[in-house]
Amino acid sequence: MSDKQNIADLGALYESQEHSLLDEFLDFLRIPTISSEKQFHEDTLNGISWIEQFLSKTPLTMKRWETNGFPVFFAEWDGAGKEAPTVLLYNHYDVQPVDPLELWHSEPFAPEIRNGEIYARGAQDNKGQCFYVISLIRALFERDGSLPVNVKLLIEGEEEIGSSGLAGILDQHKEELKAEHLLIVDFGFTDMRRPSVCMGMRGLCTMTVKLKGSNSDLHSGVHGGIVYNTNHALIEILSGMRDANGKITIPGFYDGVIALSDLEKSKINFDFNENDYVKMFDAQPTGGEKNLSPLESAWTRPTLEINGIAGGYHGNGFKTVIPKEALAKISCRTVVGQDPWKVGELVKNYILEKLPKGITAEITIHPGIGEAVRTDPNSEVMQAAARAFSEVLGKDCSITLEGASVPIVANLTKVSGGDVAMIGYGLPGDNIHAPNEHFGLDRLKYGFCAIGRILEILGSRE
Amino acid sequence: MSDKQNIADLGALYESQEHSLLDEFLDFLRIPTISSEKQFHEDTLNGISWIEQFLSKTPLTMKRWETNGFPVFFAEWDGAGKEAPTVLLYNHYDVQPVDPLELWHSEPFAPEIRNGEIYARGAQDNKGQCFYVISLIRALFERDGSLPVNVKLLIEGEEEIGSSGLAGILDQHKEELKAEHLLIVDFGFTDMRRPSVCMGMRGLCTMTVKLKGSNSDLHSGVHGGIVYNTNHALIEILSGMRDANGKITIPGFYDGVIALSDLEKSKINFDFNENDYVKMFDAQPTGGEKNLSPLESAWTRPTLEINGIAGGYHGNGFKTVIPKEALAKISCRTVVGQDPWKVGELVKNYILEKLPKGITAEITIHPGIGEAVRTDPNSEVMQAAARAFSEVLGKDCSITLEGASVPIVANLTKVSGGDVAMIGYGLPGDNIHAPNEHFGLDRLKYGFCAIGRILEILGSRE
Repeated sequence: MSDKQNIADLGALYESQEHSLLDEFLDFLRIPTISSEKQFHEDTLNGISWIEQFLSKTPLTMKRWETNGFPVFFAEWDGAGKEAPTVLLYNHYDVQPVDPLELWHSEPFAPEIRNGEIYARGAQDNKGQCFYVISLIRALFERDGSLPVNVKLLIEGEEEIGSSGLAGILDQHKEELKAEHLLIVDFGFTDMRRPSVCMGMRGLCTMTVKLKGSNSDLHSGVHGGIVYNTNHALIEILSGMRDANGKITIPGFYDGVIALSDLEKSKINFDFNENDYVKMFDAQPTGGEKNLSPLESAWTRPTLEINGIAGGYHGNGFKTVIPKEALAKISCRTVVGQDPWKVGELVKNYILEKLPKGITAEITIHPGIGEAVRTDPNSEVMQAAARAFSEVLGKDCSITLEGASVPIVANLTKVSGGDVAMIGYGLPGDNIHAPNEHFGLDRLKYGFCAIGRILEILGSRE
Repeated sequence: MSDKQNIADLGALYESQEHSLLDEFLDFLRIPTISSEKQFHEDTLNGISWIEQFLSKTPLTMKRWETNGFPVFFAEWDGAGKEAPTVLLYNHYDVQPVDPLELWHSEPFAPEIRNGEIYARGAQDNKGQCFYVISLIRALFERDGSLPVNVKLLIEGEEEIGSSGLAGILDQHKEELKAEHLLIVDFGFTDMRRPSVCMGMRGLCTMTVKLKGSNSDLHSGVHGGIVYNTNHALIEILSGMRDANGKITIPGFYDGVIALSDLEKSKINFDFNENDYVKMFDAQPTGGEKNLSPLESAWTRPTLEINGIAGGYHGNGFKTVIPKEALAKISCRTVVGQDPWKVGELVKNYILEKLPKGITAEITIHPGIGEAVRTDPNSEVMQAAARAFSEVLGKDCSITLEGASVPIVANLTKVSGGDVAMIGYGLPGDNIHAPNEHFGLDRLKYGFCAIGRILEILGSRE
């Protein structure tokens, strides 16, 4: 059978179910599985129940692994036999918060299809990508009664809040997680004309910094020139962390950074289309370190970003207060060789050292710290993934890196003992983590076909 | 009649009405006259109606001056005759917003009395101070059928949003506003053991700065190192405005500043009790310019304060976004000799010049710009006020300056043609513009007596 025929068969299989699959996908999207917000606790649990229901008629052995947070969905099937390889597929069922709600053109949990794109929180990250994986698995079982490889599905509910639940139980499930190949299906590429699969990503450490200056907001006329304004303290400390070239000035921040070898660099596609970027985001690529191309900067260099800042009155009109406290949310993206726990401590200590007299700080480093990952671009799973992605779109598939982080991946790679490939059909314009997140109907099908082909290739050891 | 007898008479007059006055005051406080928030438009208008009703049985000729914003209450009585002086008294009926609401121990518009203090938004600023003025006027009319001087009352509804309505109609009411003496009853002093009256205050210019970097919030993993984070741009620009000594670095900012003469300095009480300050606010007086005492800094030097800052996610948990926009609320307090309009332009131009590539700015300078005021400490009205304040508490009364601003006062002083005294029974711990604003029951009486004595002293030309 030719590759083209295999793809055509998978495409036909998808199309035969397309209508009902789409209904089911919209149902999945209607569940507000926001893991970070307490009022959505029940809804988030409904997310895992929904998956269990969706796969209930397959021969998968399903388990719900309890954690200290939201439970993890785990399912396995070893019917391909001991000689066949085992593939572990990772997704997550939780999503990001939705604010600012007023910027959504349709309700985040009332999915709407416009111009072939499905708009909803989680439409891409990661319910869309999760959905084509479980749809493919179920459809193959329905068609063939079996799969070409042994399969393990791992779908967690705390990726958006750092995966600490899953991280905490990895050791006790070591044996069940063993696999030759690990597919992290939470990624994407830049452009539908140029598919790619990913060989690595940055690590992450996040923290909340709260500065306190007084026991109450104070009138800025009466107290201005007397008390140290917490907003001033905050911006002074934060702005001191970065120099004019965009480099982080915190001592030790870059310790251990392993640069890419020239050989690795030659395999990676760093092409960046500035016009497309400007058009898509109405934004200029001016934020990286001097003398680095945008993707070199986003993929191979650590960052320190202020993701949130707030202090005092910021509504309509004006309120002449000196705020009692001011807050910042900081994230550091790390690269291979850096220790993200140490980076967190360095940032924390820097802030504490720079506090002006009269200001105190409360600094919380959040759980969910994750190391960066960089894998071998020539492994069996990377090659299979690249081939499948190339076949599905009929285009060459390149190798890339990724600036974002899935904190659990480094741990999961270690525990599984296998090689990892980071794949998916996300696109930069999908607005993940932002208002109006969306995912293409076409990409549901591509994902379905690609996962199918990867399993076939790995199963046949072609 | 001795001074003591006069004060005792006024005190007795207050006490004879105390119970019903307190009921009426609580009614006044229940009206949420927040001039800056649209949903309180009707309530704010109810504020002026309430005053009209309160004074309806006096012989005052009352008018409601329409403006392009909230109307101004104006009332006059010239029954003291042409030879008697005319005193113009200024108050305002609007109040500040109430957020953060969760920090209030009782509802801001459900006044509560605890330990002799009335807790409510506006309890001090300025409904409390307004209330003892109108109570005294009404009570004197009831007791005597007349007042010792001709009186004009001016109570506006937009002080907290810059007084632009009143400012816009001053010229057309020039004649009605003529007065020999002007009392701005919106002030206070530091300590009940040391009353003071105020000979000047700072001017004010406020603005909102909004930086924009993209058309949507962006994922900080995918875009971190590519796009310029608006939070970074904001803190870099803002922190560049101040040097390590607390001096503002914006070129021209200090142009024209007139320092106090040694003679003026010698008349002013700059005493500052650091222990009391720390105890009251749990805050250190570390925010002023190096080598200046706290009150010298707050009263005689201009400031640039960041009253609000906001960008990105600042709720619970974490959201790894690069915000599409970031915002700051900035106020400059000016001193005599500075042009606050020019100061606003300087700050605006500084920001526009410092914008990094990829970031745009929208800067709005708010209406309600006001010049600083400094008056002659030996004028008749300053002397009468100091004497009355001394008599009421039986303590020496000193002369001070004020760091806060009542933007309309400079204009009002010019239009009235009279000398001004800035007086009141506010205390630094009243939490004006902040949660749990409060005013003392004792101070309602002191204010009532002090205003009565000032009118007597000015009327008798003692």
